[in-house]
Amino acid sequence: MDIPALVADARSGQARAVARLISLVEDESPHLRAVAVALTPFVGRARVLGLTGPPGVGKSTATSMLIAAFRARDLRVGVLAIDPSSPFSGGALLGDRIRMHDHATDPAVFIRSMATRGHLGGLATATPQALRVLDAAGCDVVLIETVGVGQSEVDIVGLADTTVVLLAPGMGDGIQAAKAGILEIADVFVVNKADRDGAEQTVRDLKHMISLGRRSLGPAWRQPIVATVASAGEGVDEVMAALDTHHDWLVSHGELDARRARRAEREIEAIAVASLRSRLGGVRGGEALSGLARRVAAGELDPYAAADTLIAGT
Amino acid sequence: MDIPALVADARSGQARAVARLISLVEDESPHLRAVAVALTPFVGRARVLGLTGPPGVGKSTATSMLIAAFRARDLRVGVLAIDPSSPFSGGALLGDRIRMHDHATDPAVFIRSMATRGHLGGLATATPQALRVLDAAGCDVVLIETVGVGQSEVDIVGLADTTVVLLAPGMGDGIQAAKAGILEIADVFVVNKADRDGAEQTVRDLKHMISLGRRSLGPAWRQPIVATVASAGEGVDEVMAALDTHHDWLVSHGELDARRARRAEREIEAIAVASLRSRLGGVRGGEALSGLARRVAAGELDPYAAADTLIAGT
Repeated sequence: MDIPALVADARSGQARAVARLISLVEDESPHLRAVAVALTPFVGRARVLGLTGPPGVGKSTATSMLIAAFRARDLRVGVLAIDPSSPFSGGALLGDRIRMHDHATDPAVFIRSMATRGHLGGLATATPQALRVLDAAGCDVVLIETVGVGQSEVDIVGLADTTVVLLAPGMGDGIQAAKAGILEIADVFVVNKADRDGAEQTVRDLKHMISLGRRSLGPAWRQPIVATVASAGEGVDEVMAALDTHHDWLVSHGELDARRARRAEREIEAIAVASLRSRLGGVRGGEALSGLARRVAAGELDPYAAADTLIAGT
Repeated sequence: MDIPALVADARSGQARAVARLISLVEDESPHLRAVAVALTPFVGRARVLGLTGPPGVGKSTATSMLIAAFRARDLRVGVLAIDPSSPFSGGALLGDRIRMHDHATDPAVFIRSMATRGHLGGLATATPQALRVLDAAGCDVVLIETVGVGQSEVDIVGLADTTVVLLAPGMGDGIQAAKAGILEIADVFVVNKADRDGAEQTVRDLKHMISLGRRSLGPAWRQPIVATVASAGEGVDEVMAALDTHHDWLVSHGELDARRARRAEREIEAIAVASLRSRLGGVRGGEALSGLARRVAAGELDPYAAADTLIAGT
């Protein structure tokens, strides 16, 4: 396979080449490293936005709204939509993407769903590589949208230069939102479905929580709260203004480079851990592990000693 | 520190000794391995129940209901409540635990919140160890309650013999629930807040999804759906009956031992991966990583080559 030619095709705007490259990195094909090498000279240009929030707040609709806004600026947009794996995903999940179909025929918009396939480590390594594909292919903006609110989704959306946390009225009280662990990663809060009852209360709760919390790292950035009705495009200008203000702040405070270096650190570490983990799960490792597990389950061996034995055997 | 004496105290019912042991395993103290060794002869008795679902469905209330039901059988109950880390957790999260305070003065109930502290690997290794402490301390039942719906929470609740997935009417449509990736791990579904509008629709949606989905592993178990109003104790007998039926099914199909062996496999693997990861993050590894990350972020090096260099240097 001529990987450099594929990268050249992707850079010339051929969506099929982009899709092919993402499949290569997602499937952990033998060409993974060749793809990474071929992409390297072309990465680092794209602005990366993360979008997350609990189920049902309207993330796909908000993503669609942002795609339209960036397209109005004549920018090329890539979208990585992260879906947790589910035995139901073959059918049920597709319906959700319909909300983005407005943009499906626009050649300057590339939308890709990434499935976890029940293996989180896979997603943690595949998503940064897919991001590199879109970046190298000339996307000016890449939106990473995650469903769910778990730590793993937080880690993935943490790839972004700017992270938008979406909330909506009536999704459970403020305490529930805080429990989700997503407040601390927000650079911009969007309270969507702001035409519903309770929107003002949600904004007040958020303001109160922001006043209680302190960001532990880096210079202070005041997290703005923007109210939207994404399905009607209401509030889109305010969201875009907040995103631009945060981007300017990142640049002027040297935080953009710092965040991207941290992103690279996580990416390298995830690859290294996956590599080490695969050594543990090799053929002999697999047999050894099940034997050790039986002894641990039976109370004959402690799990630390078992782990030592497993590592020593690889 | 006399770890065997501490384990003996825990086994005699001293809550402070139990708490101390959990702190030792949670903080990854130098005594971690000694604790694991001392617990080993006493583990494997507790029945382990997992309880998960999206934010706002009433997991804490349902946990409290189950505690009362097991106490009515004169069983000792341990609870591990898993909270994602949050800068707000010092304040906001405590309020939530109030719902379990009914049981706070019962010496046969031990409730512990586990925080992720922003490090998922830590929780993935600490939770099984905390479970071992409660098991060895003589808890007949251990309930593991996770907030959030991410893959990581799914993995943790997957420690259980029986996993209960809680849903509630009006928490977003069925597709949103499926996206959360929690349906496939359910042994028992509970539709809580069943006195609210839409409860029957939620039950119907679930039945439809169950009919579409197939469990890929093991002999067939028909996932029951139980409606409850946990705040009023309604449906508790039906939930307990479903849990008992599933437990009997596990035993009669040899699945209990199989699940516990899988649990031990994951535990050993998590410890081994954490051990290997800590080698990467050592002092020289940390310096090496930041230097490599700068070169990857600058487009001078691909991340796979960087990971190879990192591993070679440890």
